[in-house]
Amino acid sequence: MSDLHWKSAITKVEPNNLSVRGYKLDELMGKVSYAQMVYLLFKGDMPSENIGKMIESILVSSVDHGTTPPSVLSALTVASTGAPMNAAVAAGILSISKYHGGAIEDCMHILRQGMDLVKNDGKSFDAAAKSVIDDYQAIKKRLSGFGHRLHTDDPRTKKLFSIADELGIAGDYVQMANAFVKMLKMETGKTLPLNVDGAIAALLCEMDFDPMLANAFFMIARVPGLVAHVYEEKLRYKPMRKIHPTDVEYDGPDDRK
Amino acid sequence: MSDLHWKSAITKVEPNNLSVRGYKLDELMGKVSYAQMVYLLFKGDMPSENIGKMIESILVSSVDHGTTPPSVLSALTVASTGAPMNAAVAAGILSISKYHGGAIEDCMHILRQGMDLVKNDGKSFDAAAKSVIDDYQAIKKRLSGFGHRLHTDDPRTKKLFSIADELGIAGDYVQMANAFVKMLKMETGKTLPLNVDGAIAALLCEMDFDPMLANAFFMIARVPGLVAHVYEEKLRYKPMRKIHPTDVEYDGPDDRK
Amino acid sequence: MSDLHWKSAITKVEPNNLSVRGYKLDELMGKVSYAQMVYLLFKGDMPSENIGKMIESILVSSVDHGTTPPSVLSALTVASTGAPMNAAVAAGILSISKYHGGAIEDCMHILRQGMDLVKNDGKSFDAAAKSVIDDYQAIKKRLSGFGHRLHTDDPRTKKLFSIADELGIAGDYVQMANAFVKMLKMETGKTLPLNVDGAIAALLCEMDFDPMLANAFFMIARVPGLVAHVYEEKLRYKPMRKIHPTDVEYDGPDDRK
Amino acid sequence: MSDLHWKSAITKVEPNNLSVRGYKLDELMGKVSYAQMVYLLFKGDMPSENIGKMIESILVSSVDHGTTPPSVLSALTVASTGAPMNAAVAAGILSISKYHGGAIEDCMHILRQGMDLVKNDGKSFDAAAKSVIDDYQAIKKRLSGFGHRLHTDDPRTKKLFSIADELGIAGDYVQMANAFVKMLKMETGKTLPLNVDGAIAALLCEMDFDPMLANAFFMIARVPGLVAHVYEEKLRYKPMRKIHPTDVEYDGPDDRK
Repeated sequence: MSDLHWKSAITKVEPNNLSVRGYKLDELMGKVSYAQMVYLLFKGDMPSENIGKMIESILVSSVDHGTTPPSVLSALTVASTGAPMNAAVAAGILSISKYHGGAIEDCMHILRQGMDLVKNDGKSFDAAAKSVIDDYQAIKKRLSGFGHRLHTDDPRTKKLFSIADELGIAGDYVQMANAFVKMLKMETGKTLPLNVDGAIAALLCEMDFDPMLANAFFMIARVPGLVAHVYEEKLRYKPMRKIHPTDVEYDGPDDRK
Repeated sequence: MSDLHWKSAITKVEPNNLSVRGYKLDELMGKVSYAQMVYLLFKGDMPSENIGKMIESILVSSVDHGTTPPSVLSALTVASTGAPMNAAVAAGILSISKYHGGAIEDCMHILRQGMDLVKNDGKSFDAAAKSVIDDYQAIKKRLSGFGHRLHTDDPRTKKLFSIADELGIAGDYVQMANAFVKMLKMETGKTLPLNVDGAIAALLCEMDFDPMLANAFFMIARVPGLVAHVYEEKLRYKPMRKIHPTDVEYDGPDDRK
Repeated sequence: MSDLHWKSAITKVEPNNLSVRGYKLDELMGKVSYAQMVYLLFKGDMPSENIGKMIESILVSSVDHGTTPPSVLSALTVASTGAPMNAAVAAGILSISKYHGGAIEDCMHILRQGMDLVKNDGKSFDAAAKSVIDDYQAIKKRLSGFGHRLHTDDPRTKKLFSIADELGIAGDYVQMANAFVKMLKMETGKTLPLNVDGAIAALLCEMDFDPMLANAFFMIARVPGLVAHVYEEKLRYKPMRKIHPTDVEYDGPDDRK
Repeated sequence: MSDLHWKSAITKVEPNNLSVRGYKLDELMGKVSYAQMVYLLFKGDMPSENIGKMIESILVSSVDHGTTPPSVLSALTVASTGAPMNAAVAAGILSISKYHGGAIEDCMHILRQGMDLVKNDGKSFDAAAKSVIDDYQAIKKRLSGFGHRLHTDDPRTKKLFSIADELGIAGDYVQMANAFVKMLKMETGKTLPLNVDGAIAALLCEMDFDPMLANAFFMIARVPGLVAHVYEEKLRYKPMRKIHPTDVEYDGPDDRK
């Protein structure tokens, strides 16, 4: 034991024995989902199957958004220079930052600020939302999680909330998110629907995740998408091509199922 | 349409409509697993539930391996400088390379080389394995996927193959992997059990994945583990500490369940 | 010209003609130093030779600091997995962050805050320094740029200031930095000498660089050091070795010249 | 001293004393150039002033090439998401790979292969060049370092060689590079002038650098350019803009000096 001895509470590694948070890894395999493992790794305890399903739906909802997000464009640009796949994915990960994915964390803070006013100041949900909106307007800051450049009625948001309802996970934070939409309409006159980042923020709050981990959910969800795009780039295009950020056409399978 | 117009077959993005490989994303949510999405993204078609379960078990098996892998150490080192989580995870991803994770891809090539001799040269599995082993020994190259520094009887390998059996996925490549273990013993006198990389390689071959994607499975599996370690670093340790690569003690929950 | 047309004021690229900030690149080659190019690229105008010499001395002062900085350890860890050199250097760059290199930017803000009190509030240098120190103590925040874990009398600091004197670059900010050292001693009773980060901060202020660029000087200086360590790792050590963060011995040439 | 004790021959770090390759760092400051430090770090000995000037000219020649290289585009894409400067630069570094910068290393191997035929097989320079060209044509591989998409008569190449002449550095490898141009014209009928990568390759061979370090020179040269572009992006453009890879106009200063 050296003077740099340190401790970690995540995984015990012994010859022929691996345990994550006290659970033997081989006993978990085939029994629990990847999504449950994410919860176990982040929070230290095994979640219910329903929590696992909620996380899985969040991951599936964010697995890809086509070629135009900066994470895909930076990954393709790096891949196009002949770099290995992991370097291209790393460049994509470096793009999952303040303005790309970061809205989830920001919106978690907004919803928690609202809930704090409900719980500790006795405000109604609407009054709490209005108060936070006023604070943001006073400093001319946009509320992350509301409104979308492209989707006015994001099908992923509705589906996430309906799944949360079925699984018994929707609660105060979903109500709070809806209060924000209502009060934003009243205060600004504009319809600013909850976007998918906002919906994920509400659900991560429901499951009591640390906002510091918000971006991690987006990264985990998006890595398969990044890999698929890098793989397509390597199979389909010549190195060093000029990658247009918007003039791209979908030529995959027609709608099915 | 500019002269840089290009095409992508992965995800169609329209206002209020997102389809991955032709499937509406909101219809997939709650119905298919993240593991099935990985297959859909990589291969273009929706896999059976069993294929999804096999991939899920692979991801769960590789989700973390404690603090000592270089991907964790590089991620912690970057995190310790006060860098944001995505930068730390990117440094971890950059470590998933030739000697860390790369064994999966190398072993896929070995097993495919063996199967090629069976299918096209009419060799038996044992003779094919012996022939490949001889080729490697002639150029003094180690066979990736066999033997492990720490685990002589890796519980993850056995569990992956028993799950593959139950799901009806184990076939020629699992048999080929076992032939290699047998022939390695005969040729070298040493017991070099199939390690978890080798087991994953055999199963990715069974599901007919391109070896170029081998590393991607490891990256996808390991990102939650990297995040958990970075999160622990940020909560538990001071910035700029000296991180010992081996003198670390597990202090998480005792064995349970 | 598309609707994404944009502009950049850095380098004009035409067939057989490259100009940086209006200067033909081939006419600069052999005539101006790399350090002058850094200034030209960042500020848009060609600096005097003396400014070039000052920047060059800053770069030389920070070119390497042995094996223990986190940028070197993360680069070596990535290199050790068999990753290419650029991936290892990128991991090093990702470590040049808040607590590693970041002191330069923080100290520039401190010195500028002090100078602001001198110029706009008519305070003396000592009074200005005391005022800023008091502000930091009130929020229990350390002043970046003062004190060093290892070097109590950093030879690089003294040399940087003596060079700045000779070149006629030392002025208000060097005086301000010295006022901070004096007032820190008076306020805290402790000797907290200006460290190399603090000295570089003072000199970057003298040359009127944006604090946003502080970290860039450290990155530019350190890349050759990172490359040298990665190169040594690849030539001298086996892949996947365990890299101890402190138990390392210098075995290069004895003192010379 | 632990069992992980290791050694490094680059920099000795003691309290108030830093020596690089045996030279006290503070004694080098103000006396030797950054370019000489690069040589000292990579090769272990202090180069002559002329060698330093040659390296400096190489670095100046490659400091920037406008907005279109993939290293700039990936850096800007990452910067545009609100990521810190070091993350953007790291993404740029990840693009300096096989097809972007990699030509220098490839061309060094080509020139060394040619020189090997001259020195060990007694061939003339022209015969050696022809032999290597024939080998490449037999496997239908392009010779890196010859020909350029944009520059038919790259002013940087000519200037590098004229500087090399003045400094007494031009020798066998410059002659060999010229032999390749001559024989490529004879063999293919096409004029494929030595490009700047090829010229740098020849000069790095003259200075006896390991081809493994070729890419490092390009990285070192280009980091200031990457920083300048990221800085411009952050000052001049809104986050998350769509970055067109070619429709960009230079609006910096007119030609001067």
